[in-house]
Amino acid sequence: MEKEDRKVVEMKRLNIKDTTICDATAQMLKKAERDGVETAFHRAASMKPCPIGAQSACCKHCSMGPCRLNAKDPYGKVGVCGATVDTIMARNFARMVASGAAAHTDHGMSMLDLFREVVNGNIKDYTIKDPIKLEEVAREIGIEVEGREVTEIAKDLYKELERTYIQVDGEIPFVKRVPEKTLETWRKHGVVPRGAMREIMELMHRTHMGVDQHYENITKQCTRTAIADGWGGSMVATEISDILFGTPMPVRGEVNMGCLKEDQVNVIIHGHEPNLFESMLDSVNDPTLIQAAKDSGATGINLVGMCCSGAEMISRHGIPHVGNFMSTEAVLITGAVDAMGVDVQCIKQGLAKVAECYGTKLFTTNPRCHIEGAEHIEFQEHEPRECTDEIVEMAIVRFKNRKLPVEIPNITTMGVHGFSHESINYHLGGTFRASYTPLNDNIINGRIRGVAGVVGCTNPRVKHDWVHVELVKELIKNNVLVLSRPGVPRSPLPRQASTHPKPHIWQDLA
Amino acid sequence: MEKEDRKVVEMKRLNIKDTTICDATAQMLKKAERDGVETAFHRAASMKPCPIGAQSACCKHCSMGPCRLNAKDPYGKVGVCGATVDTIMARNFARMVASGAAAHTDHGMSMLDLFREVVNGNIKDYTIKDPIKLEEVAREIGIEVEGREVTEIAKDLYKELERTYIQVDGEIPFVKRVPEKTLETWRKHGVVPRGAMREIMELMHRTHMGVDQHYENITKQCTRTAIADGWGGSMVATEISDILFGTPMPVRGEVNMGCLKEDQVNVIIHGHEPNLFESMLDSVNDPTLIQAAKDSGATGINLVGMCCSGAEMISRHGIPHVGNFMSTEAVLITGAVDAMGVDVQCIKQGLAKVAECYGTKLFTTNPRCHIEGAEHIEFQEHEPRECTDEIVEMAIVRFKNRKLPVEIPNITTMGVHGFSHESINYHLGGTFRASYTPLNDNIINGRIRGVAGVVGCTNPRVKHDWVHVELVKELIKNNVLVLSRPGVPRSPLPRQASTHPKPHIWQDLA
Repeated sequence: MEKEDRKVVEMKRLNIKDTTICDATAQMLKKAERDGVETAFHRAASMKPCPIGAQSACCKHCSMGPCRLNAKDPYGKVGVCGATVDTIMARNFARMVASGAAAHTDHGMSMLDLFREVVNGNIKDYTIKDPIKLEEVAREIGIEVEGREVTEIAKDLYKELERTYIQVDGEIPFVKRVPEKTLETWRKHGVVPRGAMREIMELMHRTHMGVDQHYENITKQCTRTAIADGWGGSMVATEISDILFGTPMPVRGEVNMGCLKEDQVNVIIHGHEPNLFESMLDSVNDPTLIQAAKDSGATGINLVGMCCSGAEMISRHGIPHVGNFMSTEAVLITGAVDAMGVDVQCIKQGLAKVAECYGTKLFTTNPRCHIEGAEHIEFQEHEPRECTDEIVEMAIVRFKNRKLPVEIPNITTMGVHGFSHESINYHLGGTFRASYTPLNDNIINGRIRGVAGVVGCTNPRVKHDWVHVELVKELIKNNVLVLSRPGVPRSPLPRQASTHPKPHIWQDLA
Repeated sequence: MEKEDRKVVEMKRLNIKDTTICDATAQMLKKAERDGVETAFHRAASMKPCPIGAQSACCKHCSMGPCRLNAKDPYGKVGVCGATVDTIMARNFARMVASGAAAHTDHGMSMLDLFREVVNGNIKDYTIKDPIKLEEVAREIGIEVEGREVTEIAKDLYKELERTYIQVDGEIPFVKRVPEKTLETWRKHGVVPRGAMREIMELMHRTHMGVDQHYENITKQCTRTAIADGWGGSMVATEISDILFGTPMPVRGEVNMGCLKEDQVNVIIHGHEPNLFESMLDSVNDPTLIQAAKDSGATGINLVGMCCSGAEMISRHGIPHVGNFMSTEAVLITGAVDAMGVDVQCIKQGLAKVAECYGTKLFTTNPRCHIEGAEHIEFQEHEPRECTDEIVEMAIVRFKNRKLPVEIPNITTMGVHGFSHESINYHLGGTFRASYTPLNDNIINGRIRGVAGVVGCTNPRVKHDWVHVELVKELIKNNVLVLSRPGVPRSPLPRQASTHPKPHIWQDLA
C-alpha cells in the first residue's frame, strides 16, 4: 500500500453490528478498518444524503434550474418552468424507471445479439445448449417447430424476439404469455408496450422540461416502460440465457466468502453477463492454465461468482458464490482475490481503490464499462477465451506475488439452487407427468398463501442483508413460498441440504 | 381572476430592463406585475439554483445517495459507490444528452409513424406534398427511383429510414451523407450510431450506478448518441416534414406579439409537431368556422405560431410567429389569446396558471403531454380536424366572453424566412443550374469565414434574447453567415425585407 492510500485511516469507524448481519462481511469490515481501507459502508456513514434530493423534491432536468422545492410544504412553490412537486417527483421516478429498464433491456439485447451471431454461424464459441427450451419458447409465441431444424427455428425466434426491443408499433411478442384478464386491463389503459426501446425513448422524451406535466400521465408511461422491461427485455434475457447456456435444475452450491481458497488462485467474476462467466469457466478448466497455476505454487484455480452473473452460474453449474452487492469490496479485503473480472451493472467504482490496496487485479471487460484505475481487456464473443485466459494468467502472476497476509472468513453455507420454473414443474409432477398441480392445489386451498420473489440489491443505508432476511422470514412464517437467489439473502436458504439426487435432466422429459 | 391567484402579488418585482431585450415581452412583464401574475422570469429571480446541482457535483442515480461532492475540492471526496466527480459529471451530462436525443428522436419517429400511415393509406388527411424531395432523399441513400411510383419509393424510404431508429447493429442510413474523412474518424473512434434508440438505451444503461465509470468512455457514448440524434432522429424529422408538408422556400413573415389582432379570434399553436399545426391551418380557413367567428363579433380568425412548430409554419406558409420560449407566458398576458394549443416540448407547466388568470383556453393535444389545469383534446392523425376544429370553437367562445382588457404590444418585425438548403442551392445558382458555387467560392477565398447555425431556447437565467442577438451580431461582424429561425433571435433578421419576388417553386427545377 502506498502512503497516499493510508490517508483514509482518518475515516469514520463503523458500528459494525449495526452495519451488517453477514458475519463474513463484518469480519472484513473490521480488517478494512485495521488496514485503513475505506468501503461503501464507510462512505455511506460519512455522506449525508442531500435532504431535498432524498425527498425527490429537486429537478435538474433543464438549465433553468436546478430547482429545489420543499417536500414539507409541497405546493408552496413550483419550479422555474412552473412544474409542481407532483410533476417533479413523477419525472424523477420516471427517469429511474427509464434507466432501470434500459439497463435490463440493453443486457437482454446483448444476449440476443449473441444469440443472433451464434445462429448465423458468426460466433462458434457458444452454441444452443438447450434446444428443448428453444422449441418451447418458439412454440409459445406462435413459431412452427414440428419437423424443423433447430437453426431454422432459432432464426425465426431471433426475428420474433428482436421485436421486443426494436418494434415501434403493435405489441411485444411475450404478451402472448400474459393472462387474458390482465392483458385486457393493460390494453384498456394503453400500457401494452410496443417495443422496449421505444418506450424508454418516449419516457425520456416525456420527462424532459416542457413535455409531460401530469403525474398520472407520466406514471402511466412508467408502467408501460416497466412492462416492456419485465415482460420484454428482462424476460427475453432469461429465456435466451437458458437456451444458450442451459436451463437450471436444482444443484448444490456453496455461498459466502469461505469459498475462497488460500492455497489456490482465486478468480472472481462479478457482473451480469453469463457469456463472460461461461468463458471463464472454460479458462479455469484449461489444463495449461491449471498447470501454470500449479507451477506458481497454487494447488489449483478457484473460480467464484458474485452478484447476478454469479447467481446464474451457481444455478447452472454449482459454481460457489461469495457475496452480494455490498460484499464486493469486503471480499477484496480478504487479500485472497487474485483477479476480479467485471462486466456491467452494480460494479462499484470504489472497487478500483480497494483492489489497488490489496494488489488485486481488477479487470473491466465490457465496452460499456470502463473504470479509472482498472485494466480493460475487452471481451470479444467471437474470441472469448482471449479475455478470460488473460485474466487467469494475470491472476496467477498476482498469486505468485502475494505479499500481504490473507484472511478468509471461515464461513460457508451449502444450499440448493437452480429452481427454474421448468424444474419446479418437473419436480412437482414426477417423472412421467410434469405439473404445477400440487402447488396450484395448495394455493387454491389456502395452505400456501402465495409465491413471492425476493430479489434486489442491498444498500448501505440499511443494515446489510437484514431487510431481505427479515422480509423472507416473515413471508415464510405466513406460508408464502419465497423464490430468491444467492446474490441476495443467504440465511433463509437451507443451511444443510439433504443428500441431493443426481440432477434430472429436464430435456429428457420432452 | 380568483382571489387565490392574486396571492402572487407578493412576488419579487423584476428589473425589467435587465430581464429582456424584447420590448414586447418587457411590456407584458410590466402588465403581469400590475395584474399580479407570476411568470418564469419571476420564479427564476426568486429560485436560487442549487449550488451543488448547478455545478453538476451531485448524483441521484441510485438509492445509496443522493451524494454531494464539492466542485471546489473535486477530488477530496467520492460518492458512496466510489464514483469520482469526473464520473458523476460525465453521467449527469450523458443523461442530458440521452434525454435531448430521446426528445428529438421520439419526435422524428412520430413524423415517420405519420409518413408510414400515409404511405400505407391508413391516414388520408395528409399526403406527400413534395415528391421531388422524396425522390432526392431516396436516391441519396441508395433507393432506386427511376420509373417508379411515388408510393413504391415512399414505402422503401420508410423501411430504410426506420433503420435510423430501430436498428441494433450496423450504421444508420444517413451516414451516406457524411463527408468521407469525417466518417473515417467516426468509425475509428467507434461512434457511428447503430440506431438512435439503441444508443439512447445504452447511454441510459451506462450511466446507471455501477456501469460506466470512466468519463472518457461515457462521453464517447454521448458522442455516438448525439450523432444518432443530429444525423439520425432529427435529420429524418426534417426530411420527412419537408416531404409531407413541403420544402420551405423564402417567404415573408411577421414576427412578434403585434401579430395578435384585438378584433379577431386569436389562436396560438405552440410546440414541435407540424401535423397539428397544418391541421389547424385547415381549421382556421374553414368557412363555417370563420363564419362562427364573425357571428361572435370577430372580424376573423388569426392563427399565429410560437417556438419550433411556429418556426416551421412561418418558413412554409408565412404564418406569423409571436415569440420564443421565454415569451410563451408573456403572450398570454396580452389577454388577446383566445386559445393556445400545445403538443410537446418547451411547454411550461406555468402556462396553465397564466392562461387561467386571463381566461385563455389552454389545450394539450398529444398523448405524451398532459398538464394539470389544461384541457386535453387528443389529436388523432386519422381525424386531425376533430381536435383542431374543437380548439377553434372553444377559442370563439372565449372571444365572445372576453372580459378583461386586452393589451397587445404594437411591435412587429417583417422578415424573410424559409432558407432551406434546397432554396439556397437554387437561389445561388440561378434558374438553370442550382449550385452552392458562389457560397463555396467565397468560403474558399476567405471572404466568408463560415456558416453558423444559431438555435436553442432562451433561458431566464440570462437576459432574454440578449445572448443570441449579441452572438449573431458578433458572427456577422466577423463575416460569418448566420442561419437562425424566428423562435430564437428576432432583431438580427432584416427589419425591412426588400420587395420579395413571388417564391420560386423549387420542384419546377428538377
